[in-house]
Amino acid sequence: MATVRLLSDEEAGAEALATFNDIRAKRQTDYVNNFWRALAHDPALLKATWDRLQTVMAPGALEPMVKEMVYLAVSVANGCTYCVHSHTAAAKSKGMTEAQHGELLAVIAMASQTNALVTALGVPVDERFMA
Amino acid sequence: MATVRLLSDEEAGAEALATFNDIRAKRQTDYVNNFWRALAHDPALLKATWDRLQTVMAPGALEPMVKEMVYLAVSVANGCTYCVHSHTAAAKSKGMTEAQHGELLAVIAMASQTNALVTALGVPVDERFMA
Amino acid sequence: MATVRLLSDEEAGAEALATFNDIRAKRQTDYVNNFWRALAHDPALLKATWDRLQTVMAPGALEPMVKEMVYLAVSVANGCTYCVHSHTAAAKSKGMTEAQHGELLAVIAMASQTNALVTALGVPVDERFMA
Amino acid sequence: MATVRLLSDEEAGAEALATFNDIRAKRQTDYVNNFWRALAHDPALLKATWDRLQTVMAPGALEPMVKEMVYLAVSVANGCTYCVHSHTAAAKSKGMTEAQHGELLAVIAMASQTNALVTALGVPVDERFMA
Amino acid sequence: MATVRLLSDEEAGAEALATFNDIRAKRQTDYVNNFWRALAHDPALLKATWDRLQTVMAPGALEPMVKEMVYLAVSVANGCTYCVHSHTAAAKSKGMTEAQHGELLAVIAMASQTNALVTALGVPVDERFMA
Amino acid sequence: MATVRLLSDEEAGAEALATFNDIRAKRQTDYVNNFWRALAHDPALLKATWDRLQTVMAPGALEPMVKEMVYLAVSVANGCTYCVHSHTAAAKSKGMTEAQHGELLAVIAMASQTNALVTALGVPVDERFMA
Repeated sequence: MATVRLLSDEEAGAEALATFNDIRAKRQTDYVNNFWRALAHDPALLKATWDRLQTVMAPGALEPMVKEMVYLAVSVANGCTYCVHSHTAAAKSKGMTEAQHGELLAVIAMASQTNALVTALGVPVDERFMA
Repeated sequence: MATVRLLSDEEAGAEALATFNDIRAKRQTDYVNNFWRALAHDPALLKATWDRLQTVMAPGALEPMVKEMVYLAVSVANGCTYCVHSHTAAAKSKGMTEAQHGELLAVIAMASQTNALVTALGVPVDERFMA
Repeated sequence: MATVRLLSDEEAGAEALATFNDIRAKRQTDYVNNFWRALAHDPALLKATWDRLQTVMAPGALEPMVKEMVYLAVSVANGCTYCVHSHTAAAKSKGMTEAQHGELLAVIAMASQTNALVTALGVPVDERFMA
Repeated sequence: MATVRLLSDEEAGAEALATFNDIRAKRQTDYVNNFWRALAHDPALLKATWDRLQTVMAPGALEPMVKEMVYLAVSVANGCTYCVHSHTAAAKSKGMTEAQHGELLAVIAMASQTNALVTALGVPVDERFMA
Repeated sequence: MATVRLLSDEEAGAEALATFNDIRAKRQTDYVNNFWRALAHDPALLKATWDRLQTVMAPGALEPMVKEMVYLAVSVANGCTYCVHSHTAAAKSKGMTEAQHGELLAVIAMASQTNALVTALGVPVDERFMA
Repeated sequence: MATVRLLSDEEAGAEALATFNDIRAKRQTDYVNNFWRALAHDPALLKATWDRLQTVMAPGALEPMVKEMVYLAVSVANGCTYCVHSHTAAAKSKGMTEAQHGELLAVIAMASQTNALVTALGVPVDERFMA
């Protein structure tokens, strides 16, 4: 599938190729995954997305692995199959164990279930939960 | 709002009241929040939900605060306003700092953005991301 | 709230008023709910929506109450608070008992939970489930 | 695809295999579908999900076929392709006719459409729809 | 995949075939895409959907290309892969350039991101944004 | 509601206040809406979001009004009530007429409906729609 062609290094223009190469350097791998190759049709959007991703996912008050698990949880809730696959791989590469993966899934399932119940019941927000 | 009345202790039947009291005991507070009071119309569903929640959210391979942040992330993606309020409060009570809250929001925003881009581009899953 | 004003009978044009009156006649009530009053800014869209709703929700191979419960389930999954309230009321008016409401909520919660797990696991469709 | 390997009977541990065999016994078929084989990496989550599913989907105030149609409706709204396939098959096996399937789809489409209109208009909930 | 068989001209009944032929005539192509062939199991739903689509997508106060871009944006947000592919093709056939496609994607990504932030923050609607 | 307090100019730190003032200057109004006041707890996220918004929404290959309508369509599909209100106001301020608003809503409703039908039918993507 794909609504645009995935661009090879040869097909990408100079600006997109520079971002591909930055991805390679920062991730210490020669592999550039399909998302970036699809996004390369718009080199400015490619660069803005990659730059922002690095800032957001850098170690900070939260560990990189926790950030990847949150990313994965959002991707599941949004039903993005590609993202679920890529961020499961990323979370594992940052140390997520099988036990942690299982607990993550259980939390996601629990939240999905109570989100639906709350919406079905139209529950008003408790005064004490408001800032 | 609410599609059902929130049941007071007096209105809840014996089975629902037992769950209210278990919530009070486990959480060491007298306060029972609106979600449980709405769910009390179906005492079996109330109990099953509360029991499962305790199992899933207990400390394990993941810390309780991380679990709350994942819960919150899913609730945001599912657009559940009540859940966003209650789990922001819960994450804070389990230690989430303002800096961590900010980073959590930035990750959720980043994921929402790339989820949309991936879907718009119909990106096929890379072979290496499949198990 | 509302992004447009809710039109009273006096403010609605002749075409929208004719639909208001058709709603009154078919539902045997003088009350026209907020959705139709908001939609009245575009009389053609108002009429097309009302006409289609009657066709779709009429008794057929499925009972009206079952149709309302399905409508409610979709509205919950889509996070439409207004719709959840209006279709809970409609399902009750068509005979949904408290026990049926409870079971409906339990099914919605179950589906929400397994939908999330399936998506998180990226489960491929079994051959036998394809037509 | 799949983010984890689908476990065969041989690869599943004793606890997961016991659940596989319970699925076989209750469903009177030797076939264990992909969802359970993916979930088997976390035997406790597998068992909790299967146990809860049986409770929720058992005949009660609502017929099993109606429950399957509601399950399907939620799965459509959540965009879970696997779930849509498996629960369409399940609804058919519980008696859903082609005419009922058509009406179900028409209701889902109608709800999706009015959910969007209501959200776009920001319609406030009518007093009379609140409990 | 597909939960129903895609009907060929030979398999479609007279009523569905008449709609197939109307699609061919209006679109000036012999090709009838998969959506209509799947929907043909319910000829009335097929016809109602096709008729409504023509009314809605006709040139009016908005240009057809703008309508297709909006259709695509909604399809992305709803995670409908098929729809994303078919409406990207449709938007291109109505004149969407690569630069416009890129800007469309950037807006969709931006909206997805701020939608999530707003929901996570539970921001109350400003008085001045209400009608 | 709100999960954080909306910061006044006095409460916002120097960095957040600088962004508030940039918003005022660029929009030529003294009014800073609630979204920015909630986001001000994380001045870096506030600035990154505002900066990116300006880049994305600037006139380019698409007109500002069209961009606002796309933004609104995504916000509706994501069920973000606040965003629906703020971007309806923004689209109107950029010239959206009542007739255009009506057509926009009709397209959003149509897409929501066919998105659901396509998902329910599990329609495979036509070869010709792939890049």
